[in-house]
Amino acid sequence: MTLLMALDYASVAVFALTGALVASRSQLDLVGFIFVACLTAVGGGTIRDLLLNRDLVFWVADPAILLAAVCAAVVVFFGAHLLESRYRAIVWLDAFALAIAVPAGAGVAMGLGHHWAIVLVMGVATGCFGGLMRDVVCNEVPLVLKQGELYATAAFAGAGAAVMTSLLTDDGMLALLACAGVTFVLRAGSIAFNWRLPVYRARPPRPERPKQG
Amino acid sequence: MTLLMALDYASVAVFALTGALVASRSQLDLVGFIFVACLTAVGGGTIRDLLLNRDLVFWVADPAILLAAVCAAVVVFFGAHLLESRYRAIVWLDAFALAIAVPAGAGVAMGLGHHWAIVLVMGVATGCFGGLMRDVVCNEVPLVLKQGELYATAAFAGAGAAVMTSLLTDDGMLALLACAGVTFVLRAGSIAFNWRLPVYRARPPRPERPKQG
Amino acid sequence: MTLLMALDYASVAVFALTGALVASRSQLDLVGFIFVACLTAVGGGTIRDLLLNRDLVFWVADPAILLAAVCAAVVVFFGAHLLESRYRAIVWLDAFALAIAVPAGAGVAMGLGHHWAIVLVMGVATGCFGGLMRDVVCNEVPLVLKQGELYATAAFAGAGAAVMTSLLTDDGMLALLACAGVTFVLRAGSIAFNWRLPVYRARPPRPERPKQG
Repeated sequence: MTLLMALDYASVAVFALTGALVASRSQLDLVGFIFVACLTAVGGGTIRDLLLNRDLVFWVADPAILLAAVCAAVVVFFGAHLLESRYRAIVWLDAFALAIAVPAGAGVAMGLGHHWAIVLVMGVATGCFGGLMRDVVCNEVPLVLKQGELYATAAFAGAGAAVMTSLLTDDGMLALLACAGVTFVLRAGSIAFNWRLPVYRARPPRPERPKQG
Repeated sequence: MTLLMALDYASVAVFALTGALVASRSQLDLVGFIFVACLTAVGGGTIRDLLLNRDLVFWVADPAILLAAVCAAVVVFFGAHLLESRYRAIVWLDAFALAIAVPAGAGVAMGLGHHWAIVLVMGVATGCFGGLMRDVVCNEVPLVLKQGELYATAAFAGAGAAVMTSLLTDDGMLALLACAGVTFVLRAGSIAFNWRLPVYRARPPRPERPKQG
Repeated sequence: MTLLMALDYASVAVFALTGALVASRSQLDLVGFIFVACLTAVGGGTIRDLLLNRDLVFWVADPAILLAAVCAAVVVFFGAHLLESRYRAIVWLDAFALAIAVPAGAGVAMGLGHHWAIVLVMGVATGCFGGLMRDVVCNEVPLVLKQGELYATAAFAGAGAAVMTSLLTDDGMLALLACAGVTFVLRAGSIAFNWRLPVYRARPPRPERPKQG
């Protein structure tokens, strides 16, 4: 339980950094930074808690968690100009946050005794929806749908690793570690070494000229 | 009850096909197909279940339903290149899915004994929100807001037919059939024969030239 | 309680007007107007009620509230051409709606005895999310993220005023009045007199020419 709360705190803080960095690309003011940071930070976990019908959404039960998001937003507002490339920082921090949020989601679903398919979905949803809301609201191309990158795939594989490990070893802690590791390695490999799955390609469009016999 | 679950299964499968086809237009990989297909497939019903505060969202209660969405995504990933026009397939499959999802939403609300206005809203929300999420996330123009097409209107009329039929005959089965029929006929008529309601038109903008006497 | 319900009614009606005006800019039909008006009108309060895990979302408990949104949509459909500038009307009506919805959100959270940080968040969320959904769905730049305007800031300050007043005076009514007043004054000042907070500015990009010694 304590481990799961620590995961929630950590993913909130790191996702908040990415949210604030996206806000800096839209040149918002400090409150705008805090708004986008909080949305990104708690978005995925909130959807998880609503879907699982938990009594209280995690940050309503423990409002101190919002402080982490606010601090991250303030740090970015005053410090982001020190970064060489904000886009690079967003992508890498987002990878860390993903690797923390997926086990946070899968762990909560496992703790509640849900079916393994629900554990998978909660891992992916907790990992992906915060960043998805950030990108939809700020009108960026969602990272989760960037063509030919492993993102949902990394989350999916990580949540799958959690399910497999907990089936084989019955050790919840190890399952969460495996989940974080697999998620991060796949996502980082995709960013750094361009790892990818084959994408869908339609047939090439027929030439537009009319048939000339 | 069994009928309503069958409707949920069917609308999940058909909406998943449309989601995967939209994913194919964005050239995602297989996991991206599954992600968008699941979002589209369960989006509307999930919002219905959250709004009605049901104990468990329908696919958390019965995870096998997700398998239908995953299969649909796989079929599209390997089969979509056989289609003559993917856009045409999206629009028509979406019409079928709408005509299944609206009665699924209205039926659940009726079964819980809600006010007729809530039955209307749940029919429209269950029908429209899956496709709306799909289009917002994939940055397509939402079908529900395509200028001058009957979409929300078809859902609204279908849900209205369900309410009227159940008031007049007290036959829940007939109400769902009427709902599906009215929804599909209106939506299909809009696609095939260009049926539409008058749209709002502002006064023509005044000419931009300065007044010259 | 009655005051809070009156606030919900009022914010629904005014937000519905803004939703219908945005629909008019997209040239939708009457049902499209009603769809966007309802989404805008009940969006923020619905998210508040889901997050606070209230037994019933406010408009499911009292469907008559939807009638206010429908009427607003009809009025705009037939009357919007009388407006000199629809954009101006949207911005000002949205300011009024914000100043009603923030106390509606903060008041509900205070009434349930939540932590002050949750009262703040619920005020901001109830105020901002209806308009945010409207703008995301209709593909407008979200007002809440317009560069250099006070919007989330106004909501935040208003909710803060509610928290402070209720701590100092223990008078719930006064707290809601202070909340509405602060929110409206800040938002109106931003629209009319261009009040703003400093925005984030990155270092100017380095010149793109290659170094020439």
